[in-house]
Amino acid sequence: MKLPAFNQIACHLEQQVLFITLAREEVNNAMNLAMVEELIRLLTLANNNQEIRAVVFRGAGENFCAGGDIKDMAQAQKRHQQGQEDAYYHFNRLFGQLLALTEQSPKVIIALVDGYALGGGFGLVCVCDYVIATKKAYFALPETTLGLPPAQIAPFVVKRLGLTTTRELALFAGALDGEKADAINLANALVENLDEGKALLEKKLKQLSRCAPGATAITKALLLNPENLSQEALLDLAAQQFSAQFTQARSEALEGTRAFMEKRPPEWAASTAAVEQEQA
Amino acid sequence: MKLPAFNQIACHLEQQVLFITLAREEVNNAMNLAMVEELIRLLTLANNNQEIRAVVFRGAGENFCAGGDIKDMAQAQKRHQQGQEDAYYHFNRLFGQLLALTEQSPKVIIALVDGYALGGGFGLVCVCDYVIATKKAYFALPETTLGLPPAQIAPFVVKRLGLTTTRELALFAGALDGEKADAINLANALVENLDEGKALLEKKLKQLSRCAPGATAITKALLLNPENLSQEALLDLAAQQFSAQFTQARSEALEGTRAFMEKRPPEWAASTAAVEQEQA
Amino acid sequence: MKLPAFNQIACHLEQQVLFITLAREEVNNAMNLAMVEELIRLLTLANNNQEIRAVVFRGAGENFCAGGDIKDMAQAQKRHQQGQEDAYYHFNRLFGQLLALTEQSPKVIIALVDGYALGGGFGLVCVCDYVIATKKAYFALPETTLGLPPAQIAPFVVKRLGLTTTRELALFAGALDGEKADAINLANALVENLDEGKALLEKKLKQLSRCAPGATAITKALLLNPENLSQEALLDLAAQQFSAQFTQARSEALEGTRAFMEKRPPEWAASTAAVEQEQA
Repeated sequence: MKLPAFNQIACHLEQQVLFITLAREEVNNAMNLAMVEELIRLLTLANNNQEIRAVVFRGAGENFCAGGDIKDMAQAQKRHQQGQEDAYYHFNRLFGQLLALTEQSPKVIIALVDGYALGGGFGLVCVCDYVIATKKAYFALPETTLGLPPAQIAPFVVKRLGLTTTRELALFAGALDGEKADAINLANALVENLDEGKALLEKKLKQLSRCAPGATAITKALLLNPENLSQEALLDLAAQQFSAQFTQARSEALEGTRAFMEKRPPEWAASTAAVEQEQA
Repeated sequence: MKLPAFNQIACHLEQQVLFITLAREEVNNAMNLAMVEELIRLLTLANNNQEIRAVVFRGAGENFCAGGDIKDMAQAQKRHQQGQEDAYYHFNRLFGQLLALTEQSPKVIIALVDGYALGGGFGLVCVCDYVIATKKAYFALPETTLGLPPAQIAPFVVKRLGLTTTRELALFAGALDGEKADAINLANALVENLDEGKALLEKKLKQLSRCAPGATAITKALLLNPENLSQEALLDLAAQQFSAQFTQARSEALEGTRAFMEKRPPEWAASTAAVEQEQA
Repeated sequence: MKLPAFNQIACHLEQQVLFITLAREEVNNAMNLAMVEELIRLLTLANNNQEIRAVVFRGAGENFCAGGDIKDMAQAQKRHQQGQEDAYYHFNRLFGQLLALTEQSPKVIIALVDGYALGGGFGLVCVCDYVIATKKAYFALPETTLGLPPAQIAPFVVKRLGLTTTRELALFAGALDGEKADAINLANALVENLDEGKALLEKKLKQLSRCAPGATAITKALLLNPENLSQEALLDLAAQQFSAQFTQARSEALEGTRAFMEKRPPEWAASTAAVEQEQA
């Protein structure tokens, strides 16, 4: 896969993992409209690429993301006054599309968070499958102090943290350091600093390589249940997918159960196992 | 706002905050029909009053609320036997209306809990946005030991604590002290005693004064999603509200973002900031 | 109640409690189709029996349950190839029926977990009302390493642990010891070993005997809300059930509230109270 060039973000592929860096370091990686558009474009490519297993989000410099760019909102005001469109609506809603796209990605999405993760940056963290926070990470929902609701991120924060914790954070415009974020499961793991974070990331990616990519994508969709199916209907669908994992061409389940009985790594994990054997 | 007189509760206004005291100290503030009716009347007034930002619930004396008044249930039995109405149904259902009204209030609802918070008192705690518990607080769901389900409170306890914790508490008629309540997020904060509780309350009210009232009300409704909108529909609504915060008359968002760029407090927080500067 | 004979499970009744042991010790109590069928038959009997108050699940030997029997899946493959039916679908879907039946049982369901609780065994734990884990308990979701989704158990794990924790566990095929399981509420209580577990079990069963059986069954259904009623509809139903607890024949609520006012144990708890008085 040849990655296109971007202006607001940087990205590269490394062993089936797509690394994305929010790259507006001069404004603590605040998201403008252009960054949101680039992220949607890149994630759409990644979601449709069979070679990519995981996506890792990071911020350039010492912060993850300072949220929506307030100067960009001023631009929206200008466009709004010129009567072109509801520029506020468009700016805000597009960010929600990015969050939904990230949440429902068939890939495993990981964030490595150092420094600020505010507002929209907080929201992006909430839709990741695994979040590593350093002790210097700082999460906050300052929206209501600016006269705004945490509009697009609200449903994703509730899904991540539950209603009780979200109410406290959002209604009082609260903030959390990495340790507190870990305690409430906003972060899945706490590390001393970015170097430790990278080491943990490597470990988790290795752990992931033992899991079949197709089964992982199906599992994620079953957990999220985006169609909001009833429990019965979801169980019916799950049984169909369970069966298809055995009966379809290049069956992961036949390979996986055979490998288990033959006490060897399945083919999707073979390279990892070889590396580990070499190292041992 | 001139507050009406009540018999079962006491109340007063103080700097945009409505303080409500459950005032049946002789029965540990157990709720009878009259108290539920008074609370519904007062909260309806508060919800429609633009000057009120927050509501604080407390109990008179050494307890918060001992739950539904069992003697009042005996009254219901008499009315029921006289064939006037389903008095049990009415007594119970009206309490659920109070809980739903409190949960969906556009104001920020806080409880300061010392001593008993049993049954219905436990339920009232569950619909508050922020709960301060003292070490002497004692929460319990004793309903099934009386041959009753925790009928109106069940859905609100599940929303507050999640299914797993609620199952354990409700099916075994369990109890919790303040420390345990804090650990499972039934309380948002634990304090040594009522004095510490009042100090924390003051701090949280100050924190709240930095948040725009309109944005806070919108945020609360987005988090609760009372219409049970789909994620897509909720995000559409949120973007409309985000835009309206900029474009409507007396826009909180224009004021808030300008104040942020001009490094001054927004007008809704001006008095708090002045007080703080004076104190510093 | 005369219990039928089974081959894959063992069971006995003791003072209104049905003890069920998964009894395929030679394969760490892995579930084959026959075990799932036997469990469905036995639970259906128990659910309809008024004398049973609680059900306790245990595993024979040193493990709780190693999950679905992979050799049985090979049998499914044979049947599938013979074109008889979608044997994979059937095997998987039937297990989901067992989980739903257990979750929605009007009885209080308890598990005592030592050793492995993997895959399907993990799922069975998730639908229990109270779970005691020993320090040697080991919970894991290894499905995706076998090329499979945790198909039937996914919705139940999300309900038990929430989306955030489940994502991490299911997508990385994670594992937990008893202590970690207790910390995330997969277990309700942690004990040193099986003997301590049995002592705690006895204590919890005594606690349960103070709760009215009918009220408990109603409560459980209100918490689970299997019809997915709206909050308003659920509160209406709850008030009807509250009223019926007073007005129906052999009313638990009349007995319970009278016993409370007369400071005596209600009739359903009388035997427990007598035993306790004797011991004191």
